[in-house]
Amino acid sequence: MAGTAQIGVTGLAVMGRNLARNFARNGYTVALHNRTASRTHDLVEQFGSEGSFVPAETAEEFVAALERPRRLIIMVKAGDPTDAVIDEFAPLLEPGDVIIDGGNAHYADTRRREAKLREQGIHFVGTGISGGEEGALNGPSIMPGGSDESYQSLGPMLEKISAKAADGSPCCTHIGADGAGHFVKMVHNGIEYADMQLIAEAYDLLRHAAGYEPAKIAEIFRGWNTGRLDSYLIEITAEVLAHVDADTGRPFVDVVLDQAEQKGTGRWTVQIALDLGVPVSGIAEAVFARSVSGHTDLRAVGASLAGPSPADVGALDADDAERFAAQVEQALYASKVVSYTQGFHQMQAAGAEYGWTLDLGAIAGIWRGGCIIRAAFLDRITAAYAKDAALPSLLADEQFAAEIGAAQDAWRAVVSTAARLGIPVPGFSTALAYYDALRAPRLPAALTQGQRDFFGAHTYRRVDREGSFHTLWSEDRSEVQG
Amino acid sequence: MAGTAQIGVTGLAVMGRNLARNFARNGYTVALHNRTASRTHDLVEQFGSEGSFVPAETAEEFVAALERPRRLIIMVKAGDPTDAVIDEFAPLLEPGDVIIDGGNAHYADTRRREAKLREQGIHFVGTGISGGEEGALNGPSIMPGGSDESYQSLGPMLEKISAKAADGSPCCTHIGADGAGHFVKMVHNGIEYADMQLIAEAYDLLRHAAGYEPAKIAEIFRGWNTGRLDSYLIEITAEVLAHVDADTGRPFVDVVLDQAEQKGTGRWTVQIALDLGVPVSGIAEAVFARSVSGHTDLRAVGASLAGPSPADVGALDADDAERFAAQVEQALYASKVVSYTQGFHQMQAAGAEYGWTLDLGAIAGIWRGGCIIRAAFLDRITAAYAKDAALPSLLADEQFAAEIGAAQDAWRAVVSTAARLGIPVPGFSTALAYYDALRAPRLPAALTQGQRDFFGAHTYRRVDREGSFHTLWSEDRSEVQG
Repeated sequence: MAGTAQIGVTGLAVMGRNLARNFARNGYTVALHNRTASRTHDLVEQFGSEGSFVPAETAEEFVAALERPRRLIIMVKAGDPTDAVIDEFAPLLEPGDVIIDGGNAHYADTRRREAKLREQGIHFVGTGISGGEEGALNGPSIMPGGSDESYQSLGPMLEKISAKAADGSPCCTHIGADGAGHFVKMVHNGIEYADMQLIAEAYDLLRHAAGYEPAKIAEIFRGWNTGRLDSYLIEITAEVLAHVDADTGRPFVDVVLDQAEQKGTGRWTVQIALDLGVPVSGIAEAVFARSVSGHTDLRAVGASLAGPSPADVGALDADDAERFAAQVEQALYASKVVSYTQGFHQMQAAGAEYGWTLDLGAIAGIWRGGCIIRAAFLDRITAAYAKDAALPSLLADEQFAAEIGAAQDAWRAVVSTAARLGIPVPGFSTALAYYDALRAPRLPAALTQGQRDFFGAHTYRRVDREGSFHTLWSEDRSEVQG
Repeated sequence: MAGTAQIGVTGLAVMGRNLARNFARNGYTVALHNRTASRTHDLVEQFGSEGSFVPAETAEEFVAALERPRRLIIMVKAGDPTDAVIDEFAPLLEPGDVIIDGGNAHYADTRRREAKLREQGIHFVGTGISGGEEGALNGPSIMPGGSDESYQSLGPMLEKISAKAADGSPCCTHIGADGAGHFVKMVHNGIEYADMQLIAEAYDLLRHAAGYEPAKIAEIFRGWNTGRLDSYLIEITAEVLAHVDADTGRPFVDVVLDQAEQKGTGRWTVQIALDLGVPVSGIAEAVFARSVSGHTDLRAVGASLAGPSPADVGALDADDAERFAAQVEQALYASKVVSYTQGFHQMQAAGAEYGWTLDLGAIAGIWRGGCIIRAAFLDRITAAYAKDAALPSLLADEQFAAEIGAAQDAWRAVVSTAARLGIPVPGFSTALAYYDALRAPRLPAALTQGQRDFFGAHTYRRVDREGSFHTLWSEDRSEVQG
């Protein structure tokens, strides 16, 4: 006998609980299950009035509570716990049922799980969910992978509980087969790392090159948030910078320990990009910058290293500082365009590698609400792909190219100033280097190939004819076919 | 009945063949084996006069030809072929015998194989061998891992066939347990990527900022090779740049296709550094730079992007160009110190992670001969660790700190000029950013932590007291214990 719940949530820690409430508030009957039943009862007790919940004590009761085909969402810690829950439920399910993994799984695990459950006729839908606790409750950005068939029944429900963009469209779309959803969520997080690093560099420059105090910088970010940089991260940067520590009366940002932590998705993004042969230097520098900040032993060494004298720094007068701040906005925007270009390149490459037909414009579209990198800017990416779905790179879009072209003088001035003043801007610099490398008619990679041929007979190709060649370096230096 | 060969080599492609000849030339009796016996016979036929070889047709014959405890070197393609050969030979061996894997194995595979063979009482010695074909024949740099016991019998033989440094010491030392040898070889290759990228950037700047022709740049490199940059890579750079293509009469470097290839150890180095939390941005940028160079589709897009006008470029007069070239030497040297600092940090971190007691000074010592990154500079690293074996970072060494301090003005000028002229210098820039991040009394990582607490309640620490804190951002912004 089938139950009446349209959806079930197992794993009722804060993310699972909020997601269950979100479904219930949207009119769905939600079956609830948790390893420790007290959590299930707490939820019903506290939030039972928000909608229709069916609490279940056991896995069997939970499964029995679901209408068929069953749809159950796993909200447990990524890794072994996810496998354990799948192993517990899979034997109780029937062909056509759908298991959704809403955790932060590695996409390779999702691919493995999907393939295994497919043999049993069960749809496994690895789903990226972005927006934290608050998003889970009020509308996250949702990135479901898995089969087309699973999306037919599941999609409308996920779209209903998702965030809505400014134009009212749901921040949820079917990303692609098997691990595509978790892959795209991972790249989202990688881009978030890069965004945050670029913002950190902009702040650092305004503080230490322009010589502004945090309150003033908060104002500047508030201003930027009304322009093309309009985004959640810029908005909260202003909030954080404007905040004053109640204890000390000092700017909050000055009492926070300057060691950034990380949970791993940024690192994964870079590791996988390396396997795909995609340069994501902006994300890599962001991950490294966090890691540098935490190496207190190395920073203790660094404290005594020579640098520009303090007299060189903060010597800008008011007009120059204002001009410089405007240049920083340009540099931040240009670097941001580059880091999105790299992230979208990575998704494009993964699509080709795994046979996913990713709609990159739609992906930008569902990031407009609910998630951390939500930004006006994403509309522009959607528009770029709408104009040309086969765009080889975001930099091939006329409008982005024009904007970055207009920003480049300022961008160069900022990177140049930072180098001179001794302010680390790994994100701004690597974005500029990527841009300039793409522009270069000739790269010194030719020298690299020459060296490789010299020491390892790795051969090289020529600019003027096909084939692979080797120079007999230790003999008469004649050239032979490689 | 035991045989008389002190060492056996299975897998007689060029690396295996040259290594076998190297052992024979050094007076050892060498058993030979290859899946296709014709290769074995060819070797004996061509090079039999160089020493004492015992050709074997079958695995059993090969094993029987070895004195006990047996020492056999596997020289096959890394990956499955290595496992296949181990599976073939392990059953024929006895406790105390030694299998040496001289291929480019991933150290994690080496750890797995070592653990498995240890159960059988067989020593498995994953050994990094650097120097290519020529090194294998005339003396490579050798990095054996595995047990102390295995090194007692094996070490003297490996040291004998290894390259010798200028002071006559062998370029071979026992690196550490299980996968340590292959790990260190991997980092060697990562550092090689970074070295090559920095040289490529220096060349590019001399070409496009100073406006020099390759022949002139070859001269400059030849000059640098008599100073602190004295190294094999600088030496061959001069050779490659001086070479003129016979076909066209043009500089060789101008007829080589500017798309750099890679085999994967650079990528591995970065991927593993990310897992270890070690910033190796120099190696990462080198890997990315090669990858950018090969993306012809993106470079086609880049060709139409805006950049500094040609009038800005190459406008240096002869004196300025000369001054600039001297600055490039300083920038190259400083960036090189940083990339070695990062690579040595990675080895140090791996030692802590895997319980290897790595002698970093000795490792620098065995890289002085035989391998691609051999350089006078390595003596300096050995000296730094001799003065203080617990050096937290190469930058903590007084002499390196002094040199980089003296170089930093020029380094900043070069990075700044490159940004202004539109010449990509990701390696120089990231090295400078790393240096400046370590120097910074405060990093904007504090802002990053504030943002993370704002959007994800990830908490932060404070500069003024212990504990973990959270600000109630969406409530009254008071602070609570996290």
